[in-house]
Amino acid sequence: MATGHFDFARLIAVAMSNPSTAKTAISPRREEDFPEWYQQVVRAAELAEPSDVRGCMVIRPWGYGIWENMQRQLDAMFRATGHRNAYFPLFIPLSYFAKEAEHVAGFAKECAVVTHTRLEVDADGKMKPSSPLTEPLVVRPTSETIIGASYAKWVQSYRDLPILINQWANVVRWEMRPRLFLRTTEFLWQEGHTVHETEAEACAETKQMLDVYEKFVRDHLAIPVYSGEKSESERFPGAVQTLSIEAMVQDRKAIQAGTSHFLGQNFSRASGIQFQNREGKQEFGWTTSWGMSTRMVGTVVMTHGDDDGLILPPRIAPTQIMILPITPKEETRAKVLEACDKLARELRDQRYADLALEVDVDRRDIGGGTKNWEWIKKGVPLRVEIGPRDLESNSVAVSRRDQPMKRKASMSRQEIVSRVPEILDSIQQSLFERAKKFRDEQTRVIESKKDFYDFFTPKNSAKPEIHGGFALAHWNGSRESEQQIKNDLKVTIRIIPFGESEKGRCIFTGEPSSRRVIWAKSY
Amino acid sequence: MATGHFDFARLIAVAMSNPSTAKTAISPRREEDFPEWYQQVVRAAELAEPSDVRGCMVIRPWGYGIWENMQRQLDAMFRATGHRNAYFPLFIPLSYFAKEAEHVAGFAKECAVVTHTRLEVDADGKMKPSSPLTEPLVVRPTSETIIGASYAKWVQSYRDLPILINQWANVVRWEMRPRLFLRTTEFLWQEGHTVHETEAEACAETKQMLDVYEKFVRDHLAIPVYSGEKSESERFPGAVQTLSIEAMVQDRKAIQAGTSHFLGQNFSRASGIQFQNREGKQEFGWTTSWGMSTRMVGTVVMTHGDDDGLILPPRIAPTQIMILPITPKEETRAKVLEACDKLARELRDQRYADLALEVDVDRRDIGGGTKNWEWIKKGVPLRVEIGPRDLESNSVAVSRRDQPMKRKASMSRQEIVSRVPEILDSIQQSLFERAKKFRDEQTRVIESKKDFYDFFTPKNSAKPEIHGGFALAHWNGSRESEQQIKNDLKVTIRIIPFGESEKGRCIFTGEPSSRRVIWAKSY
Repeated sequence: MATGHFDFARLIAVAMSNPSTAKTAISPRREEDFPEWYQQVVRAAELAEPSDVRGCMVIRPWGYGIWENMQRQLDAMFRATGHRNAYFPLFIPLSYFAKEAEHVAGFAKECAVVTHTRLEVDADGKMKPSSPLTEPLVVRPTSETIIGASYAKWVQSYRDLPILINQWANVVRWEMRPRLFLRTTEFLWQEGHTVHETEAEACAETKQMLDVYEKFVRDHLAIPVYSGEKSESERFPGAVQTLSIEAMVQDRKAIQAGTSHFLGQNFSRASGIQFQNREGKQEFGWTTSWGMSTRMVGTVVMTHGDDDGLILPPRIAPTQIMILPITPKEETRAKVLEACDKLARELRDQRYADLALEVDVDRRDIGGGTKNWEWIKKGVPLRVEIGPRDLESNSVAVSRRDQPMKRKASMSRQEIVSRVPEILDSIQQSLFERAKKFRDEQTRVIESKKDFYDFFTPKNSAKPEIHGGFALAHWNGSRESEQQIKNDLKVTIRIIPFGESEKGRCIFTGEPSSRRVIWAKSY
Repeated sequence: MATGHFDFARLIAVAMSNPSTAKTAISPRREEDFPEWYQQVVRAAELAEPSDVRGCMVIRPWGYGIWENMQRQLDAMFRATGHRNAYFPLFIPLSYFAKEAEHVAGFAKECAVVTHTRLEVDADGKMKPSSPLTEPLVVRPTSETIIGASYAKWVQSYRDLPILINQWANVVRWEMRPRLFLRTTEFLWQEGHTVHETEAEACAETKQMLDVYEKFVRDHLAIPVYSGEKSESERFPGAVQTLSIEAMVQDRKAIQAGTSHFLGQNFSRASGIQFQNREGKQEFGWTTSWGMSTRMVGTVVMTHGDDDGLILPPRIAPTQIMILPITPKEETRAKVLEACDKLARELRDQRYADLALEVDVDRRDIGGGTKNWEWIKKGVPLRVEIGPRDLESNSVAVSRRDQPMKRKASMSRQEIVSRVPEILDSIQQSLFERAKKFRDEQTRVIESKKDFYDFFTPKNSAKPEIHGGFALAHWNGSRESEQQIKNDLKVTIRIIPFGESEKGRCIFTGEPSSRRVIWAKSY
């Protein structure tokens, strides 16, 4: 049902007769089964689908269009902060990969390993791998070690620093419990890798890139985040410090939206990135890495989607405005289509947030209701209908995806053209405000261990996803209590927030604590 | 020598004293050793370098910047012809890959095969692959079979057609004799994959995309090409028809610059892409695929480069204009830099061929000669020098990379700003004209087998690369003579040109022939 097309008239009738059980385009609804709702939205919006290769996904044009917009906008922010893109090999020799002990331990359990370079037909007529490699190759799960090998050649003197490079690439981490966008064996991401002369510069870079992520996620994806540092047990394998931004989605779980790692000299020692410093002495470089992935597409779905499907922030929508011609009679059809095309051209001349507007006319001959629902499910921010009667009155019917489906605004053509940047901005803002309000309401200051356990224990065993949200609680740094909470509740420290310290006592150990940290269940 | 920095004064002195043996920035010169010249340009321009992973390359920021510009501009042409981007898995199950017999035979000898998904430390303390896969996975050498599996699900009815999708991706073909950009184990490319209702539509798409490639290569890369169809023996494995554009580089060899394949129903049969046609009957879809790769970066180097390094067509240069401050005295330094920054801002407001101009100021404190040579080697189209004396006269010294190094034009600041689009266009045109003149001069109509063998036999055994170029000769379609020529001379049919037929006789068999075909040695 959720993937098919709806009978528009029937739907309205049902909705009118019994608004509380109004039929929605996505079934189940979020409150009925959030994980299944998510899968159905991803499918109904034609964002992606599983492939027959375990854990790998096919990203369909609408999903990939969202990713391309994210790429373009994030890439501009990387350039503005002095970074340039490059590309390094997909394959990492096993010996490189093993150079940093914590790093290899962190990724060894989920690697795709290339062992042969040829296929041959065996005696039974079956095709089999042949020509074994002397040294197996690991398909990159992340590129610190392979990029480090190049940097070791490029860096000789402090004059060669900083190196500020980013890579857009696919990476592979073998995944036993895949979930589209959020956790897939192959995913797309960017990974920044920088080398600096001093520890202070590398730390500043680590923080700067976290700030870039926070700004991007807030202003472009309309998602509020908390930012801070990971606890030791949640760090990137091999990092000295991992900074993270954490979003809350509608089942109140956290999603780690972007991470920025200060790697100290760990990886430069492993790769031999050495330079002659200003005093003429050999020194290891100070490195950072930072990444954001296609996981953000899933985060947008889970943050903004409703029971009718996806809702896209205008800034990253592949199409911001879909014009829907209403053509009940053959004799007015040509005129309506002409008016739609003319409006599309006028709207494309407008700009919103420095973006050229993407405006399409859905000319398909498949029935107005079907079309309308398709774009609702795909989350197009604005739908504009033009029918024969609108031609006479020079008006259009405008529907905002962030507002109830039946609320349509009638506007003159001139009005929609001149007001479109402001309307798109208002949608972008309303999505952010709604997400922030939700997040803030589910973020609780917790003062005792009992309240903490209560907060994270589902009240209704049939709906295990309905639990607290984010808990702000004092913690004194004890790894034992952190592990205990993880075992008992599947709750982890998402971040140790930056900023002012606050005196208190750890709610688990009773020891003095200088800071509240943010706890949550997470993806 | 070629990778280091030059002593500018000494170089000028040498050049003045003996112009015929003037020192060049790249050693060896093209006529001395073309393959080595190529490697040295790629290195000196910091385009790419080999990695320790056999056959894989590291694409450095300057090389990747060229590729990004190619991507952006080609992508816009794909969009304008109705295509959208998507992304399919890196891994292909062996059983999929083996579905099309010719296809698998064509790629089986050069596959990277993933057989394990984990690394474990064995009894000797060595890290080894573990967790073997039941079915090995092939790292995509091209994606017809994995994309076909998705299309089989998406296509049900003629109403679902055409499917017009492109993918930007990395692919892997195990390479025993790698050469940077031209032949690497991993390379970056785009691959278009379309499905159509009729054979005629699929053929029209195949030709349309070849035309897109021809236009892109001509207008953006300033490279003239011949276009036509491949002979049967040179077709893509599994294709019914392969169309190609062929460029000639400065050692007179051909480079296949882009290919577009009409796949008939071969792959739709293999993947089960079936639809209900307008008559209500099940029919297999008609598919095409087409690709262009990072090989084009190497083709640009080999087409336009000279003995001082790379020469970039302005349309794809990561930086079109490099401003070089001349700061001999500390007291005028600030003023010179200020004037450079002001000019950079003014130039960035100009547009060329719908592109925002990329203008940089090289503020590094490393000596004017070193800087100047670096940008010569990197092929920046325009260099603009500003020194203290220029401030008074309000003038700048402009050097075009397509003209001799010592020819500088003095212009007023106003003049360079207003004329910059025209100057860049003139560089773009002059590169094209030069390449076309060279190509045309080395393209010969050949009327006999003896002349053909003479044309392709090096006159000087010490310089095997100096041979004919492109030969236009009648051929009657005999695979035997095609194979004989390949064995004897390493010469192949590059294309069977489109267009008017011409009656004649095959120069090898003496049989009647309706068409001249283009023969050449190739990369």
